Amino acid sequence: MTIKFEVIKDSKKTKARLGKLFTHHGVIETPVFMPVGTQATVKAMTPRELEDLDIQIILSNSYHLFLRPGHNLIAQAGGLHKFMDWKGAILTDSGGFQVFSLEKLNKINDEGVSFNSHIDGSKHFVSPEKAMEVQMALGADIAMAFDECTPYPAGKYQVEIAAQRTFQWAKRCKEVHHGLNQSLFGIVQGGTFKDLRIENAKKLVELDFPGYAIGGLSVGEPKSLMYEILDCTVPWLPNNKPRYLMGVGAPQSILEGVTRGVDMFDCVLPTRNARNGSLFTSSGKLSITNAKYKDDFTPLDNKCKCYTCQNFTRAYLRHLYMSKEMLASTLGTIHNLYFMSFLMKSIRLALLEDRLLEFKEEFLSNFLN
Amino acid sequence: MTIKFEVIKDSKKTKARLGKLFTHHGVIETPVFMPVGTQATVKAMTPRELEDLDIQIILSNSYHLFLRPGHNLIAQAGGLHKFMDWKGAILTDSGGFQVFSLEKLNKINDEGVSFNSHIDGSKHFVSPEKAMEVQMALGADIAMAFDECTPYPAGKYQVEIAAQRTFQWAKRCKEVHHGLNQSLFGIVQGGTFKDLRIENAKKLVELDFPGYAIGGLSVGEPKSLMYEILDCTVPWLPNNKPRYLMGVGAPQSILEGVTRGVDMFDCVLPTRNARNGSLFTSSGKLSITNAKYKDDFTPLDNKCKCYTCQNFTRAYLRHLYMSKEMLASTLGTIHNLYFMSFLMKSIRLALLEDRLLEFKEEFLSNFLN
Repeated sequence: MTIKFEVIKDSKKTKARLGKLFTHHGVIETPVFMPVGTQATVKAMTPRELEDLDIQIILSNSYHLFLRPGHNLIAQAGGLHKFMDWKGAILTDSGGFQVFSLEKLNKINDEGVSFNSHIDGSKHFVSPEKAMEVQMALGADIAMAFDECTPYPAGKYQVEIAAQRTFQWAKRCKEVHHGLNQSLFGIVQGGTFKDLRIENAKKLVELDFPGYAIGGLSVGEPKSLMYEILDCTVPWLPNNKPRYLMGVGAPQSILEGVTRGVDMFDCVLPTRNARNGSLFTSSGKLSITNAKYKDDFTPLDNKCKCYTCQNFTRAYLRHLYMSKEMLASTLGTIHNLYFMSFLMKSIRLALLEDRLLEFKEEFLSNFLN
Repeated sequence: MTIKFEVIKDSKKTKARLGKLFTHHGVIETPVFMPVGTQATVKAMTPRELEDLDIQIILSNSYHLFLRPGHNLIAQAGGLHKFMDWKGAILTDSGGFQVFSLEKLNKINDEGVSFNSHIDGSKHFVSPEKAMEVQMALGADIAMAFDECTPYPAGKYQVEIAAQRTFQWAKRCKEVHHGLNQSLFGIVQGGTFKDLRIENAKKLVELDFPGYAIGGLSVGEPKSLMYEILDCTVPWLPNNKPRYLMGVGAPQSILEGVTRGVDMFDCVLPTRNARNGSLFTSSGKLSITNAKYKDDFTPLDNKCKCYTCQNFTRAYLRHLYMSKEMLASTLGTIHNLYFMSFLMKSIRLALLEDRLLEFKEEFLSNFLN
């Protein structure tokens, strides 16, 4: 099945909506946060741990899997779900963002991108058609069109060229994409230029994708500017299709995105922070290696019901981080992903009960950094 | 409660026995293998994963915990069990082996050992009394006497001095050791000299410990010599007390130890091997990063019922190891510890059914490296 999206309830005071995204691998309640599993694994997590955390959908990176172990190998394995034993839904990105973030290794033209592997320096060329071939081989529930993501700041001419190219590539992606159980999302580009965003969104919507992402944000621009761009872009995206804000995972930004009508988010932040000892609590981020936690025998967050908080103290967690034990990353990631999962559940409940703005205000008044 | 040991059944054709070791943290069926949790964590495992693997008892290292986070901090936390949330039994070593393996950092005399921390170079002095203070603070179910472990090869005079010192230290340990829920084991030293082993064993047994370890083996001597020393030492240890062969964890050596009357084993081998991609199968060790497993979509061991073998292929495991993902270590460790747990269960069942030698022969004929 291709995906289906249903808006269950619209927020009265905001653009937010409670929704359901039907996929071949389960029904995803939205708004949803998608943890990142770059190399066919969410770092430090077993699939059963992710299931315990009620993770509904993860994101995996085509660019990385294309290079290692190779998309054909994963196709041979029966697809990415089977390869990594993940029973929930998967979204694969297109590699566009990696083209952007590994900029020094690449050359872009209208045909596609030539780049050198960050692993072994080998040369590769990815076109929109190739990006589709890779993602169809991976077999995720949602694939992303191949896009060009511009940095911030960038001149308007550069951004305009990239946005036009992104649109042309989206058309080419749509032409070659097919897959019984995979849906292709378009990606809106246009940097921080409102007119470019609106133009790009309008043209993409004409192509009638089953979902739309907003790319090229959260790349260094001020948060307020990101929210402005969301404010001007979202209204041009259809109400009956899911909207996905790429690369955004800070709790505050998720709340701002949700109230602006975004349904899906992904980011390495919660998992990367966890590995670095930066852990979310209801009162903000906490750096667990701080000396003051040495003999703190309370849980990380005494309001949290995750495995980590129910069974371990800050003192023990600090010891694990100071000793560079792998269990530090595992327990930290369990906690941060639980926090995200719980945040999204709370957002959905607030939407259901028509009190999203109240929830947002209360959350942000406690979550101080 | 201090520990109690009960021999359930003696093997008819060997010196092996099926036993039960009653501790404050559960009844341990013997022969048993104890995974190592050096820094208050079995590397890459959550406590609940260890429970799923039916791990009954783990070993933790006093030397490491003394240095970081400090035994007093762990006492403040309520002891090691509570600190690391491990509900099963724990045995702590005395630090003697670390004195031996970090030889260049230390100075030994009859009073104790001066050494520099491998973490920050700070100076420390550990006496038998200090080793007891540390282990009582940690609060494991079983503590070990402070011993001097000699290398292999070593001259007889050096070994004799160390064995005598180990005996004197054992007396001092016994004098100061107290603990409602902790039992102190003596350690037999004497290198590869049979007369020294026998003399040391006889003298230690007079001190009437609730259990006896055989230390200073598996330090580089030929396996056949280790078995000879076991053959001459075990008969001098009481039948009604548990016998523990320190630092031995290779499946073949465990079988040889069991048939010679050993009840308990510990070693970093299964967990360290797992992190290095050396995984146990019923036909021997397998190096998972070998290129031939690149597109091998079969389980690691199709006879194995562990989480790893039930859900993942060799190709996926190889990908995780090649990509240096933490999940590689987790899945590898789950498998290797399951293998050890299953091996020990099989040994106990064979003992119960009077077919230990047959089991040993069959296992060794399949397990080729």
